[in-house]
Amino acid sequence: MTRINDNYLKLKAGYLFPEIARRVNAFAQANPTAKIIRLGIGDVTEPLPLACRNAMIQAVDEMGNRNTFKGYGPEQGYAWLREKIAQYDFQARGCDISAEEIFISDGSKCDTGNILDIFGKENKIAVTDPVYPVYVDTNVMAGHTGDPNEKGEYEGLVYLPINAENNFTATIPSDKVDLIYLCFPNNPTGATATKEHLQAWVDYAKANESIILFDAAYEAFITDPTIPHSIYEIEGAKDCAIEFRSFSKNAGFTGTRCALTVVPKNLTGKAADGSNVELWKLWNRRQSTKFNGVSYIVQRGAEAVYSEEGQAEIKALVNFYLKNAQIIRENLSQAGLSVYGGINAPYVWVKTPNGLSSWEFFDQLLEKTNIVGTPGSGFGAAGEGYFRISAFNSRENVEEAMRRIVESLR
Amino acid sequence: MTRINDNYLKLKAGYLFPEIARRVNAFAQANPTAKIIRLGIGDVTEPLPLACRNAMIQAVDEMGNRNTFKGYGPEQGYAWLREKIAQYDFQARGCDISAEEIFISDGSKCDTGNILDIFGKENKIAVTDPVYPVYVDTNVMAGHTGDPNEKGEYEGLVYLPINAENNFTATIPSDKVDLIYLCFPNNPTGATATKEHLQAWVDYAKANESIILFDAAYEAFITDPTIPHSIYEIEGAKDCAIEFRSFSKNAGFTGTRCALTVVPKNLTGKAADGSNVELWKLWNRRQSTKFNGVSYIVQRGAEAVYSEEGQAEIKALVNFYLKNAQIIRENLSQAGLSVYGGINAPYVWVKTPNGLSSWEFFDQLLEKTNIVGTPGSGFGAAGEGYFRISAFNSRENVEEAMRRIVESLR
Repeated sequence: MTRINDNYLKLKAGYLFPEIARRVNAFAQANPTAKIIRLGIGDVTEPLPLACRNAMIQAVDEMGNRNTFKGYGPEQGYAWLREKIAQYDFQARGCDISAEEIFISDGSKCDTGNILDIFGKENKIAVTDPVYPVYVDTNVMAGHTGDPNEKGEYEGLVYLPINAENNFTATIPSDKVDLIYLCFPNNPTGATATKEHLQAWVDYAKANESIILFDAAYEAFITDPTIPHSIYEIEGAKDCAIEFRSFSKNAGFTGTRCALTVVPKNLTGKAADGSNVELWKLWNRRQSTKFNGVSYIVQRGAEAVYSEEGQAEIKALVNFYLKNAQIIRENLSQAGLSVYGGINAPYVWVKTPNGLSSWEFFDQLLEKTNIVGTPGSGFGAAGEGYFRISAFNSRENVEEAMRRIVESLR
Repeated sequence: MTRINDNYLKLKAGYLFPEIARRVNAFAQANPTAKIIRLGIGDVTEPLPLACRNAMIQAVDEMGNRNTFKGYGPEQGYAWLREKIAQYDFQARGCDISAEEIFISDGSKCDTGNILDIFGKENKIAVTDPVYPVYVDTNVMAGHTGDPNEKGEYEGLVYLPINAENNFTATIPSDKVDLIYLCFPNNPTGATATKEHLQAWVDYAKANESIILFDAAYEAFITDPTIPHSIYEIEGAKDCAIEFRSFSKNAGFTGTRCALTVVPKNLTGKAADGSNVELWKLWNRRQSTKFNGVSYIVQRGAEAVYSEEGQAEIKALVNFYLKNAQIIRENLSQAGLSVYGGINAPYVWVKTPNGLSSWEFFDQLLEKTNIVGTPGSGFGAAGEGYFRISAFNSRENVEEAMRRIVESLR
C-alpha cells in the first residue's frame, strides 16, 4: 500500500495563478469578443534582448559540432556565467560574493521551494502577509505546518503583516523565528526596504541564529540609489542570508528559464548534535544529486546579459516597464484610488474601492473593463481589500487598460 | 537557531560521478601529457540533431518579436510537445497514454528525485543493487533511511541484487514493498527486462498496492523487438506505474536538458485516512508550485525529435552508440573478460579481472591505459567486482580505448 504525502491535502484549492487563469478562461469563453488585457501574473511581454538571442543562436550552432558540443555541464552552472554574476551583480556593489557561492538554476520559484530540502523540520518559519504563495505552499507540502484556518493561515507559520501602517515592510518579530522569507522589492506590494530596515533584520537574524531567505527577483527595478539591491550590501548578511535572483524580470527570461541562488561559504545551520554545518555543502549536494544544470544554450543567453549590449538592453527593458508602472500609478491615483509601490518595482498595489473584497474587485474589473489583475487576498489574509496590477505589458495595453479602469470608476 | 536536514549527514562522502571527476582531475594534473579517454559518465558526445538545432534557432528568433515572444509556459509543458510524445512514444506502441498524463521537465535525474515529494514517509522502498545512485541518495535526503552499514547499504531500504545469476533482473521479493525503482534497459548493467518479467512486477505491484517507478531513459537503445520500451506495454501497468523518460540519451540532450514523466490519471496512493488519492493531481500540484516549465526554446528542440528528419537523426545517433557498444563487447570478450549488456543498451558491464575490486580496476585502468570507466561498486554493494564502460564517445576514441585495454590485459 503506497502512502501519499498527506501534507498536500492541507493545501487550499488552487495555486493563485491557475485560479485566475480558470476565471479568465471562463469569462473569455462566455464573451468571445471581449478584448481582455492581462495585468495579472507578473509575466514579461517584450522581446528577449538581441544580445541574448545572438548568444543563444551561437550556442545552438556550437551544439552542431562535436568539438564544441556540450553534454552535461556542472550542476552548479558554468564558471564563466557564475563569474560574470559575481562581478556585475555583487562585487560591483561592494558585496563580497564569489563565483563559487553562486548556483545557477532554472528558476527562482524552483529554488525558493527546493531550498527547504536542506533545512530541518524543527524550524519556526516566518513569512510576510501578503506573500508570494510559493513560500507558504512549499512549507505546507514539506509538512512544516498544520491545517489552514478560515482566513487561509496555516497553523505553525508565523505571519508578519505588511500594510500601509508599517510602509509595507514587516515589523521585526519579538519572538524567535529560525527561517524568514523576505522579498524586496516586494511581490506583491511593490514596496522596498531601506538599508536600515534590512540591517535590523540582519541584526535580528544574527542574534537569533536565524537564516533570512532573501528574494531579490525584482532588484533591477530599484530606481532609488539609497535602496540596497542585495542583502549582502548589509553588514553581517553573509553570516545569515541566502539570496535568490532571476533573469526572468530584468532580461525577460520567464519563458527562457534562468535564475541563481547565492549561498555564502561561511553560512551555517545547526545539526541535531549542536554542531555547525555549512549550508553551501548541503545545497551543493542537493543540486548535484537532484538537478543536472541549466541548458548550456540558456546559460550562454544569460551570460550575454552582462555584455555591453546586453546591459543596455536590459536597462531599456526595465525602464520600459517602470514607465508602465508610473502610468498605472498616476491614472489610478487621479481616479481616486490609494496606490502603493510601482516606483522601485513593476507592481502597483491598490486599495480596492468601496470596501470591495479583492476577488469582488477582480470579478468586477474583469466583467466591466475586461482587465485582469491579481486579488490581494490571493497573497494572504492581510492582502484582503487590495489588488495587484502588474506593469508587464505593452505601452498600448497599459494605456488602454488605464482608460477603461478610470472610465469605469467615474 | 536554524536546524539543518540531518538526513544529509547520513550520505556517504561523494556522489559517484564527482568522485570519479576528482580522481581523473588529479591524475590529469600529475600526467599532463596523458591522452585520457572518458568512458565513465554516460554522457553523449555527438552533435545535436540538425532538426533540433533548426527548431531551437527558430524559437530563439520568435523570442525576438513581441507577437511571437513566449513568457511563462505551462508548468506541465506545451501541449504540442506532450501530444507528440503521447503519439510517438506511447500510442504508437499500443500504450493508452494521453498528452495530459505527460509532464515535461528539465531532466529525469530531477524527476526521479522530486517524485518522492508526493509520497509519504511510511513507504517501504526497494531498489536494485547495483542501482543508479540518485534513487538511493534522494531517499536518504528525504529521511526514508537510517545510516549506511560498512557495505554502504542504508538501513530501511530493501536492496534487490541483480547479478549474472538472475540475468541482471531483480528477483521479485516475497515481502511487501510499497515503492519499487526499476530501470530497464538497466543503468549500470545494460540488462533488459522481458515482457514476462515486467508483467510479474506489475502483478506484484497490483497485488500489494505498490507503485513502480520505471526509468526508461535508455529505451531507444532496445534492438530486440520482443523487449518492451515502456512499462505501459504491460497489462495493468497504468494502475501501478510512473514512467520516466529523457531526451538526453536518444537525442543528445544531456547539455540541452529535456525529459518527461508519465503519471497516469487513474493511478492512486493511500491517504492516512485510507482514501485513494490520485497521484496525477499531487504531481501536477508539485510541478505547478515548485517548477516553472522547461525553456520554450528547448521544448521546440525536443518537439523536432518527432519530425521526419529528427526521427532519422536520432535513429542514426542511437545506432552509432550501439555500434560502439558492440565494439567494446567484442574486444573485451576476446581479451577474456566476462561482459554483459551492450546489446540493447549503451552500457557494457564487465567483471573485473583477477579478483580486483571495482576501484582497484578503475585506478589501474586509469594509470595504465588512461581510460576512465565507472566502478561497479559505486552503484551499490552488489556491483563490487564489476565495472561499467559507456559507449558514449567517438568511434575513434572507442577503438583507441579498446586497443589500449586489450593490450594492457595481454
